Amino acid sequence: MVEDAASLTSLLSQFAALEGRKVLVHGGGRSATAMAASLGIESRMVGGRRITDEKMLEVVTMVYGGLVNKNIVAGLQAKGVKAIGLTGADGDVIRSHRRPLKRVRMDDGTEQMVDFGFVGDVDRVDAQLLVQLIEGGTVPVMAPLTHDGAGHILNTNADTIAASVACALAAHYDVTLTYCFEKPGVLRDADDDSSVIPSINEQQFRQLTEEGVIAGGMIPKLENAFEAIRQGVRQVIITHSENIDGSRGTKLER
Amino acid sequence: MVEDAASLTSLLSQFAALEGRKVLVHGGGRSATAMAASLGIESRMVGGRRITDEKMLEVVTMVYGGLVNKNIVAGLQAKGVKAIGLTGADGDVIRSHRRPLKRVRMDDGTEQMVDFGFVGDVDRVDAQLLVQLIEGGTVPVMAPLTHDGAGHILNTNADTIAASVACALAAHYDVTLTYCFEKPGVLRDADDDSSVIPSINEQQFRQLTEEGVIAGGMIPKLENAFEAIRQGVRQVIITHSENIDGSRGTKLER
Repeated sequence: MVEDAASLTSLLSQFAALEGRKVLVHGGGRSATAMAASLGIESRMVGGRRITDEKMLEVVTMVYGGLVNKNIVAGLQAKGVKAIGLTGADGDVIRSHRRPLKRVRMDDGTEQMVDFGFVGDVDRVDAQLLVQLIEGGTVPVMAPLTHDGAGHILNTNADTIAASVACALAAHYDVTLTYCFEKPGVLRDADDDSSVIPSINEQQFRQLTEEGVIAGGMIPKLENAFEAIRQGVRQVIITHSENIDGSRGTKLER
Repeated sequence: MVEDAASLTSLLSQFAALEGRKVLVHGGGRSATAMAASLGIESRMVGGRRITDEKMLEVVTMVYGGLVNKNIVAGLQAKGVKAIGLTGADGDVIRSHRRPLKRVRMDDGTEQMVDFGFVGDVDRVDAQLLVQLIEGGTVPVMAPLTHDGAGHILNTNADTIAASVACALAAHYDVTLTYCFEKPGVLRDADDDSSVIPSINEQQFRQLTEEGVIAGGMIPKLENAFEAIRQGVRQVIITHSENIDGSRGTKLER
């Protein structure tokens, strides 16, 4: 979610300063939308998720796998982090399958069967290769792209990649999963950045969702996050990209 | 040099069938030129080399590091090769510096000082990381991009990457460097594909260049190739991309 140059530099400095073994997962949606527009390709979103037709797949492959990933990698190198950029195809690290038609609740309350196009739902993460890279002294920087094993790159949500990787690594490490975005955490009042909920468990999440306090893109983010905790991730923090050390934000609890 | 889908599939099949440890280095110039054109960016070449201004750097970072690299990686995965895509920035594997102004002989015979822009001349290759990846069972697939260690991606000629990597690996392995392009080898007569010179040493190369038999883009390719042999690469083969097993083409000799 951090795509302006100054914020990115700041985030990379913070990330470089984090101690211990680490993995960075990035997005790039705004850059992809901008690049698509420059190429005369319209971005279509349903329920906050991008429809990835053949042309858009080219764009996200270029933008996520090339432009964004390589600039982050080069930026981290400049800060002394031995970053190595990966998509799910690299080293066969994340295998996925193309998402079948999916029933989606639209903004107007109706439901529709949606073909998201070249979008991958994760089947498995090869933690072994990640561990090998991490123990070899490199820091994986992961783009939100996967592959189906049959030669096709697929577009996969960055939050999902982060959760899947965190779960896979939980068998090997004590994992903290930190989601960074443009808000300081899960808010009681979307318009009040000081209303951060400091900690939340799954039951509270369900209740706040029913009450409409938690809505929109925060719902799948938290679904992913609680799933990660169920699968062994020790801690999940949702915070602003200015606080990637997790010192502030919302902590998820079992 | 292989950018149409059918030829690429054939090349990847051949590459997958090669026995032993291997590394693939790819280009992507035509795709970059086409993508630049779609974005309204003009490609400027001097002496066969691309001028890489800021906008073109974005294009080559996207196209080489993303579109071309990831499609090759996914394609190889489908053939059972555990490919891992790398630019020079990834794992700090190839460090370069921005090329200073360079005196270039133009087509009209005059000389000019040319600023190639964001183009990197290679300083060093980290063979250690490549060996670690290769011995770990992955096959590096390298895009023609490097970095300067200060956060900048730089565009670097694919032939140069191939030679630099081959030289660095020569300290660890018995290396054969195979250059694939659209001709069956070094030709005595550029218009006659049956005029392949089966083997050539450096003295013969100098003489054939003076005679004008070897000209154009073949000269830097051969310069790179002989330098690689001087630095310990066991064998260099220049051949058509249909023969990447090196069974035909021009063999370079000491």
